[in-house]
Amino acid sequence: MDLKAYLEEKRTAVEASLKGVFDKPEGPASDIIRAMNYSLLAGGKRLRPILCISGAEAVGGEARGVLPVACALELIHTYSLIHDDLPVMDNDDLRRGKPTNHKVFGEALALLAGDGLLTEAFRLMSGPDVSKVADPRLLLEVIGLVATAAGYRGMVGGQVVDVQSEGREVEPSIVEFIHTRKTGALINAAVTSGAILGGGKEDQVQAISRYGWRIGLAFQIADDVLDVEGDSRRLGKPVGGDASKKKITYPSVLGLKRAKEAQREMVEQAVQSLTAFDQKADPLREIARYIIERKK
Amino acid sequence: MDLKAYLEEKRTAVEASLKGVFDKPEGPASDIIRAMNYSLLAGGKRLRPILCISGAEAVGGEARGVLPVACALELIHTYSLIHDDLPVMDNDDLRRGKPTNHKVFGEALALLAGDGLLTEAFRLMSGPDVSKVADPRLLLEVIGLVATAAGYRGMVGGQVVDVQSEGREVEPSIVEFIHTRKTGALINAAVTSGAILGGGKEDQVQAISRYGWRIGLAFQIADDVLDVEGDSRRLGKPVGGDASKKKITYPSVLGLKRAKEAQREMVEQAVQSLTAFDQKADPLREIARYIIERKK
Repeated sequence: MDLKAYLEEKRTAVEASLKGVFDKPEGPASDIIRAMNYSLLAGGKRLRPILCISGAEAVGGEARGVLPVACALELIHTYSLIHDDLPVMDNDDLRRGKPTNHKVFGEALALLAGDGLLTEAFRLMSGPDVSKVADPRLLLEVIGLVATAAGYRGMVGGQVVDVQSEGREVEPSIVEFIHTRKTGALINAAVTSGAILGGGKEDQVQAISRYGWRIGLAFQIADDVLDVEGDSRRLGKPVGGDASKKKITYPSVLGLKRAKEAQREMVEQAVQSLTAFDQKADPLREIARYIIERKK
Repeated sequence: MDLKAYLEEKRTAVEASLKGVFDKPEGPASDIIRAMNYSLLAGGKRLRPILCISGAEAVGGEARGVLPVACALELIHTYSLIHDDLPVMDNDDLRRGKPTNHKVFGEALALLAGDGLLTEAFRLMSGPDVSKVADPRLLLEVIGLVATAAGYRGMVGGQVVDVQSEGREVEPSIVEFIHTRKTGALINAAVTSGAILGGGKEDQVQAISRYGWRIGLAFQIADDVLDVEGDSRRLGKPVGGDASKKKITYPSVLGLKRAKEAQREMVEQAVQSLTAFDQKADPLREIARYIIERKK
């Protein structure tokens, strides 16, 4: 299969859908809409929405039925980037080659833009667009899955330990704790929610969830490796940022060689999780390999 | 009816339920659980959860069926207080007589505690506890209603305009814009979601929603008035804070006398919205009056 064309096709559908999430920026609160759209529509790979769609397709479902949930996942990802970039957190000035949200809109509005994106994600997942095409019980299951992945047991919990570990010596188990939660949990929720809404049977959903955990971890290790070896122009942010901030990463704790071995192992295990699936799961297989071969 | 006993009975049920929301604070991310519980379990009137229960009871429903949603509303309210108190927003040191979250846990953890509370609210609303007792379609409607009320069209939008209006001369219409969104939207969502989950017919839900908008506005005006006339010991925070921060309030824009007239008018209209209801709506009627007579 032509992965590049596949990713481009799905990305285009996701972009079109994301553009329609918010009302036109009118009225007294129009600045918050501008601030949310600034970060939401700043490009990016749209990996989480695409994984949600690919997860649905792997079990015979359709992209149309999961698009609002796919977009909701990107809203949650975007909120997490805005809050992570704030001065009280990572204090970053650049994101995807553009000034970070608080650099453009100020810290108060950036904080609220993050809050607004997170909240709107749940409105999207419960909205009439998606409840018309999906079984409401499955939708509730997906909302619970996404909330768990994004909350204190997942992304928020990973971020807490990340912030508290900066500049300290930590065990490899702590790096894994951070990575499986900070990045892995939402990536897993993306592909798994697609499989649930796409009508996957229980064993299919479980297999895709196993795939999701493996590629989530592989993705974060790959991000860490890119921060050491990548090209700052392609990444849209300076390389070496993790080391200068004394961030806890796989390369910093295990060394670059073992980090690369770990990501390859994760990808192999991810692909093995899909042995019972036919060629409808080929995009998931290809995406797993792409995750560690990408340059940004 | 004995409103004091009614409020105390419901508050006790809500407190017990709130104590069980989060896992025990164990493991690497235990601090986030401590930070969330610190603000969530700091007391307070629990007005939103109680309104949700009273809304359900007014249409013949039971408290048991709405308790997870009632608690979710308190989580959302608590997150909004933590984020509002942050130095980049209102920069408050005291809340309910205790140091604010960021004063105890630092700004990064307070930010994440707010994010965690907001996210967990949606997990609660979609969880097995509530989906066992409620129609999943009604639950999705409620999740959408609460997300809209909490998001950029509601609470977040009101907060944006509030922050942007500080220290500036504004029209009375802007005060109403802020108040209906910043406080009114979630109060309305609380009582309306109770009516929906309690099995209310469409005209009943609409009447209770009208009631909700009126008491939401009355509640915020009463808060503004208390900030001018209240007792700082009872309030657990200094009085006069709004004026010193040049906050936009009803008293500051309309004067104290007209602000008090406006809140009385809102309460009368709220009670009138309930004429078609029997004595099961008495708690809602009494709560409307209590809102402007309270001392904290």
